[in-house]
Amino acid sequence: MTIEKVEVTLGERSYDIQIGIELLEKAGDFLLPMLKRPSVVVVTDENVTAAQGERLKAGLGAADISFKFIILPPGEATKSFLQLEKLTSALLDLGGERNDLVIAFGGGVIGDLTGFACSILRRGCQFAQLPTTLLAQVDSAVGGKTAINVRQGKNLIGAFYQPALVLADITTLETLPKRQLRAGYAETVKYGLISDKPFFEWLETSGDKLLADNGLTERQYAVKKCCEEKAAIVASDEREHGARAILNLGHTFGHAFEGALGYSDKLLHGEAVALGMALAFDFSVRLNLCPKEDADRVRTHLSKSGLPTNVSDLKANAGTAGELMRFMLRDKKTEAGKLTLILVKAIGEAHIVKAADASEILSFLEEKITL
Amino acid sequence: MTIEKVEVTLGERSYDIQIGIELLEKAGDFLLPMLKRPSVVVVTDENVTAAQGERLKAGLGAADISFKFIILPPGEATKSFLQLEKLTSALLDLGGERNDLVIAFGGGVIGDLTGFACSILRRGCQFAQLPTTLLAQVDSAVGGKTAINVRQGKNLIGAFYQPALVLADITTLETLPKRQLRAGYAETVKYGLISDKPFFEWLETSGDKLLADNGLTERQYAVKKCCEEKAAIVASDEREHGARAILNLGHTFGHAFEGALGYSDKLLHGEAVALGMALAFDFSVRLNLCPKEDADRVRTHLSKSGLPTNVSDLKANAGTAGELMRFMLRDKKTEAGKLTLILVKAIGEAHIVKAADASEILSFLEEKITL
Repeated sequence: MTIEKVEVTLGERSYDIQIGIELLEKAGDFLLPMLKRPSVVVVTDENVTAAQGERLKAGLGAADISFKFIILPPGEATKSFLQLEKLTSALLDLGGERNDLVIAFGGGVIGDLTGFACSILRRGCQFAQLPTTLLAQVDSAVGGKTAINVRQGKNLIGAFYQPALVLADITTLETLPKRQLRAGYAETVKYGLISDKPFFEWLETSGDKLLADNGLTERQYAVKKCCEEKAAIVASDEREHGARAILNLGHTFGHAFEGALGYSDKLLHGEAVALGMALAFDFSVRLNLCPKEDADRVRTHLSKSGLPTNVSDLKANAGTAGELMRFMLRDKKTEAGKLTLILVKAIGEAHIVKAADASEILSFLEEKITL
Repeated sequence: MTIEKVEVTLGERSYDIQIGIELLEKAGDFLLPMLKRPSVVVVTDENVTAAQGERLKAGLGAADISFKFIILPPGEATKSFLQLEKLTSALLDLGGERNDLVIAFGGGVIGDLTGFACSILRRGCQFAQLPTTLLAQVDSAVGGKTAINVRQGKNLIGAFYQPALVLADITTLETLPKRQLRAGYAETVKYGLISDKPFFEWLETSGDKLLADNGLTERQYAVKKCCEEKAAIVASDEREHGARAILNLGHTFGHAFEGALGYSDKLLHGEAVALGMALAFDFSVRLNLCPKEDADRVRTHLSKSGLPTNVSDLKANAGTAGELMRFMLRDKKTEAGKLTLILVKAIGEAHIVKAADASEILSFLEEKITL
């Protein structure tokens, strides 16, 4: 399998996404041209296996790049002010300079936190994304959204800050726990549902292989496809003044459930997005925007892939509809107290709805919770 | 006196600086066109007088803009991670949305912290600078540098984030403590020293009036002059890839002394800049870059204006030359372990020197400390 490249076109902030197998071993070759001095700091967490760490060290060493590792605790709780302060302090103590490059080596949590830390370190230092989870490779490592979570909600504090390079090594997915792979799969399906019905249909037939142990080829194809779709949207609207909001399909509903369950391992982000997408289709059907067959087809595929699609699939109590609603209203896209929702006309035809009716959403949630 | 406008030209991030008397009373008129809804949050500190707060409230009320105030403790210690977290949390609790506007109403500390908080709140919300100190009006409120201080040094964590508007109400300087006015005067002198000898000469003759009780006319002229100079430099190099570093004249030496004295009221930022500029001239003389007469003339003017220009002028022990050197090496402009210094050929002719010789600086500092 050859290495495939997707370009993110953003003027002076443009960068490449390289997708292929065994890229960690080649990381030094990709990184060296962008370094002012042959030295990097790698930020990672305990979820990244020692074997993967050794592969990256070998790849850096092969290009005579020296490195230091900062290892953070795993899990969504790491996306906090406390860890942000600790990480920036550790980077300063390592003697980082404004032109130094920091590598985010891990899943979405490491990418989001490290990218944010780099955006504010000396008012901005270079960073590269080396995503090791499917969720990060298809979605979170691309496009420059970085953030931490706060008491008031998920990703409410952060920055738009683009990496200088993304290296998606498909090989790293081989040791990813199946639950994490499925969570990433939810974000993969999202790209089909937004604007690419043929891709959704390909997933309906090839999703099993992608999720199976030897799904290298299917994974590389899916990562490339998602990165292409995301790169095009980000290039058109980097700071989400409009069109980029479409990428939030399933996220406004999803974030509410994540918030209700305390951003914990009880509900992974990708799982919340799966549930959120199923609900976004249901709500679209309720508003007579979308045929019920499409909502059923989406629920069937997500559910068959081992993802939650009903409130009753959750392993913990998500609270009342009113409580969920409060989380939804804290969404970053809320304007003048009105919710923005991503709804659908059909599979592959999502659109942005500003000023969604809050009372309609509330009664929809009440129905869904008692089902 | 008419209101004067200086434009900062930065493409879609362009904005106006309005300079004049009694602008707080007109704040609502300036702000209303940029609001999505007629509601703002004002961040200020206990140094801003109640009378000024009432003037701003009247100005907002006159345009039917509702407001909430967040009042922070005064002083450089407020530029901390702790206060950043508290402020962003308070802004989220007030129900801020991405398009809401936040007003930084105070001196450099309030502007730097509030601007930084706004840059990361929902990945960026609008803010306006209403500077109430001379230092903020001539320098820190313009150009989009925002930051907090950390253990490793001053302004090491922050963002380039431009305000949507700057309203410099000269009237607010009337109640400013004289020591604060003098500190701001140091940054004013800086603009003459960098590139405008006629402005320095004007300050030599008009500085007394500017610092006196009824110096309204001189203050407005000086603020406008400094904003024009800064706007031109920022427009050419917003993110300090090169030319903008010239604005750091006196700052690398100055930051070291601020760090050594714990960023406390023992040495105000402007006072540190005065000392730093005198030292930058001395060091330039030592390197045979600048005539000694110019260094003497600068020291004479700053000293006559009540500012420190020798290490012996400090009221506290600044430690050893080695300790100061460590603070200097942590400067954001350090590259591959080499210091960048702003040195001078003459009054009005500053230039950027990359890779300044650290051992030369160290022995220079040793000499200066024992003087």
